[in-house]
Amino acid sequence: MNANLAAALNPPVRILMGPGPSDIHPRVLEAISKPTVGHLDPYYLQTMDAMQVMLRDLFRTQNEMTFAISATGSGGMEATVVNLVEPGDRVVVCVNGVFGMRMADVAQRAGAEVTTIERPWGEVFTVDDLKEVLVKTQPKLVGIVMAETSTGAAQPVAEISEVVHEAGAMLLVDAVTALGGMPVEVDRWNIDAIYSGSQKCLSCPPGLAPVSFSQRAVEVALNRQTKIQSWYLDISMLANYWGSDRAYHHTAPINMSYALYEAVRIILEEGLENCFERHLDNHLALKAGLAALGIDYTAQTGHQLPMLNAVRVPEGVDDASVRRDLLNRFGIEIGGGLGAFKGKVWRIGLMGYASRQANVLLLLSALEQLLAEQGLQFERGAGIAAANQHYLQG
Amino acid sequence: MNANLAAALNPPVRILMGPGPSDIHPRVLEAISKPTVGHLDPYYLQTMDAMQVMLRDLFRTQNEMTFAISATGSGGMEATVVNLVEPGDRVVVCVNGVFGMRMADVAQRAGAEVTTIERPWGEVFTVDDLKEVLVKTQPKLVGIVMAETSTGAAQPVAEISEVVHEAGAMLLVDAVTALGGMPVEVDRWNIDAIYSGSQKCLSCPPGLAPVSFSQRAVEVALNRQTKIQSWYLDISMLANYWGSDRAYHHTAPINMSYALYEAVRIILEEGLENCFERHLDNHLALKAGLAALGIDYTAQTGHQLPMLNAVRVPEGVDDASVRRDLLNRFGIEIGGGLGAFKGKVWRIGLMGYASRQANVLLLLSALEQLLAEQGLQFERGAGIAAANQHYLQG
Repeated sequence: MNANLAAALNPPVRILMGPGPSDIHPRVLEAISKPTVGHLDPYYLQTMDAMQVMLRDLFRTQNEMTFAISATGSGGMEATVVNLVEPGDRVVVCVNGVFGMRMADVAQRAGAEVTTIERPWGEVFTVDDLKEVLVKTQPKLVGIVMAETSTGAAQPVAEISEVVHEAGAMLLVDAVTALGGMPVEVDRWNIDAIYSGSQKCLSCPPGLAPVSFSQRAVEVALNRQTKIQSWYLDISMLANYWGSDRAYHHTAPINMSYALYEAVRIILEEGLENCFERHLDNHLALKAGLAALGIDYTAQTGHQLPMLNAVRVPEGVDDASVRRDLLNRFGIEIGGGLGAFKGKVWRIGLMGYASRQANVLLLLSALEQLLAEQGLQFERGAGIAAANQHYLQG
Repeated sequence: MNANLAAALNPPVRILMGPGPSDIHPRVLEAISKPTVGHLDPYYLQTMDAMQVMLRDLFRTQNEMTFAISATGSGGMEATVVNLVEPGDRVVVCVNGVFGMRMADVAQRAGAEVTTIERPWGEVFTVDDLKEVLVKTQPKLVGIVMAETSTGAAQPVAEISEVVHEAGAMLLVDAVTALGGMPVEVDRWNIDAIYSGSQKCLSCPPGLAPVSFSQRAVEVALNRQTKIQSWYLDISMLANYWGSDRAYHHTAPINMSYALYEAVRIILEEGLENCFERHLDNHLALKAGLAALGIDYTAQTGHQLPMLNAVRVPEGVDDASVRRDLLNRFGIEIGGGLGAFKGKVWRIGLMGYASRQANVLLLLSALEQLLAEQGLQFERGAGIAAANQHYLQG
């Protein structure tokens, strides 16, 4: 017996209401443990085909190059950027939170001349915010985050896409947190490249990044002057594996693919519109409950994400101890603030399978208990009452 | 119900004796479906610590920066290369198969001035093969593949490492197929960076890449002139997440980590030396059986991998139909040849949990049936008899 032999694996059962991973659907945990087959097995190739068809439904696109990158959502970000950007290309990135900052960093590392435009955290970009920078920099690519997980802000994309394309640029969209929880219309909004992650509204463990590239984007990637800097993420080779050639590239993550397959299947069974409505409904109930406790959202009114409720930690309340108590006493994980919001913001996810009435009511009940302990003044039971009133009016 | 709703997931049960993924240990499939926790959950951080301790045992190293990259083995290759190589750096890559070629490609994409030295497929490099190129190019880094999965050749590393370090270079080793199936001695052999994959001798699904960086390699990565081109694989940021800071980088693939944790735990339970002996024993039995059927190895004598048996398809036998029949009639997957070996070579894996007497005997029995159908002449039962004789003498 080796001295360093670790303890048996025995993870606690959590209710995952943070910024992701979110609660995993039980059918997805069942799928992930199905027998592994080879990555060139006829059965696996057939599931890849079916997965692509389902992912196109999810992204609402006809894009042939719609598939899953063998990495997490940030790997999906990197995949879209490095395929489209060559050294010296001008790229505009819209930054109003951590993930816009990350996209700018990724583009710089790919050799782009990056211009960032900024909005305060919690606010979103309007068409007017982009006009000047588009004229001035004439970018090849504009990147924007649809659902800024650090601030809870929901970025409208359709109009932004219009001005971006009028300026001759391509549009890259971060839909890591958005996909499966709110409408993401790749074709209608004319998005050239988009990425997401398996661990948010898809109710699947982290590890895969669904992506889609428009035909224009694919042509840009295939007709570059320079080689794509990442071998692992090179879409020209990935296309040969996901396409009809089925040429070996890397060994696909079989069991994670099973999980994503089942996860997307569950969403399409429910129906996308039903799924979006459920996310909105539970968000509004939570919001009503939090308001009754005097807790405000960080994102501007009218642009609050249904699946990620970023709210201000009430004055006089200790951020870390509330989160620790939620975890240890109730098994509930919520997220803390990132960057400028550290210690000041809670990020409450209602994503995918986690977006359920039971979770909303449990969280509000637990919060009432913990906030009362910390001396916060509010009418006892007010949070639950407000949430229930929302559901009853449903 | 959506028109594109895919069929229920129902993968066939295969015996995975190709070049990977290999058979998954049942305990690993159980582990992968355990309840998902958050990537900053105290329980998960504790399992990461324990995982690092176990991975150090597996790599036989004290290297602090020993962890798993959130990508497959090829992502591990890219991670080691892009952290150590800056544009203009001179890199020597030893190429005697597909994976050496891949490493050269990855290094070129990272901006390296790559010099390749070559040996015929199936042969390995000696110290003498390297001396001239080391003097001539004075490289920063030398890359070599320990277990060339395309040819089945086992590359000795210890002496190569000496001349590489005498020349002032660092040594990068591909241990994707080697790790867990034969000795990999990171500290004793003075390896500066090494990567593997979860899906070979670790009996774990594909999706993670164990890596280890020496202190020297970490310093090189942290003191670069240029930013690491990959944000996702940037060791300076990964170190903050895997290190004591636990700073959020990307969302770790929780369930795949469970699988790898259990997989490594199983190997350490068995004991590394026992595990290597088992691989060797089953390899020798298979080899004896194949010899009795007149089937030769592609790798040079004395340098044949225990876990990956690359053998020549006998004259007059149809490669594809034998592999198809093995899969469809017996549920056994073996691999075809890559590149120059396409159609001419079978790659029979005896990796991790797949390295078992039962698999050796079943494969030989099935092969005897299929080869007899194809008209190959051999004494009936000769393969099984030879393998059993090996086991009886064992």
